[in-house]
Amino acid sequence: MLARFSRLLRSRSLPFSTQSVPERLWKVGRLNHVAIAVSNLDEATKLYRDVLGAQVSDPMPQPDHGVYTVFVNFENTKIELLYPLGEKSPIEKFLQKNPSGGMHHVCLEVNDIKAAIESLQKHNVRPLNPEPKIGAHGKPVVFLHPKDCNGVLVELEEA
Amino acid sequence: MLARFSRLLRSRSLPFSTQSVPERLWKVGRLNHVAIAVSNLDEATKLYRDVLGAQVSDPMPQPDHGVYTVFVNFENTKIELLYPLGEKSPIEKFLQKNPSGGMHHVCLEVNDIKAAIESLQKHNVRPLNPEPKIGAHGKPVVFLHPKDCNGVLVELEEA
Repeated sequence: MLARFSRLLRSRSLPFSTQSVPERLWKVGRLNHVAIAVSNLDEATKLYRDVLGAQVSDPMPQPDHGVYTVFVNFENTKIELLYPLGEKSPIEKFLQKNPSGGMHHVCLEVNDIKAAIESLQKHNVRPLNPEPKIGAHGKPVVFLHPKDCNGVLVELEEA
Repeated sequence: MLARFSRLLRSRSLPFSTQSVPERLWKVGRLNHVAIAVSNLDEATKLYRDVLGAQVSDPMPQPDHGVYTVFVNFENTKIELLYPLGEKSPIEKFLQKNPSGGMHHVCLEVNDIKAAIESLQKHNVRPLNPEPKIGAHGKPVVFLHPKDCNGVLVELEEA
């Protein structure tokens, strides 16, 4: 009787100790970059390159994304300076609201963006697009709704 | 005559090739953290810990700084969640302006904060305090005026 109870306990306890925690199908990795929208790309580049002495890329037009980008490379991650390109730049409205510029979004790496989107939706964190797009680094990205992320625009990048 | 001219050229060229570029007395290193001010610390913690699956610290009261902090540790850097503590929290005004929360500042490491402040002032980048203070990590920090940094509040930390 005791042996049977012990077996039952073992078989019962399993689902609650190991099997009941579903294995996470995706995980978050590095903080890929912090994006800063600027109203003067030349001045912003000078601040990071000449004043702070950081290693800074040339400006790169990203016509698919409506921005110019300048990457400021730190030892562990980067700042991405964004400046509007074309008439319907996605950062135009942000710069109207913040004429001096400001922190625009933060980008986190995930190892499986589709699994991440599915899982986040279950937690009521809405992606701005149902499917990932190809981002400025040539990798799949998705933006999450700031209202679901404490007022912060969060980009996920598959890396 | 030619040898003398050559010598002159060599001696003249030195100041312009090596000696005229003053050696930088300080340098910028890692991006230490991105700080996010939140209006609900519990919800924000849940987003990063339970939804995104990141490693998250317990909330820590920082009475000297008027905030609670929660550190979200990524592989390469961290996000610092800030929530007001006490009546005169330095993030109170920011949260009034951004009731859902938002990106508050970015912190860059420097190897010599006093040399950095002196050098930045020469480039018209104003520190908010003339002398560094001891920050939430127990290290000397200084904030730079957002108007001098493309609308971004930049913290420097000696590390």
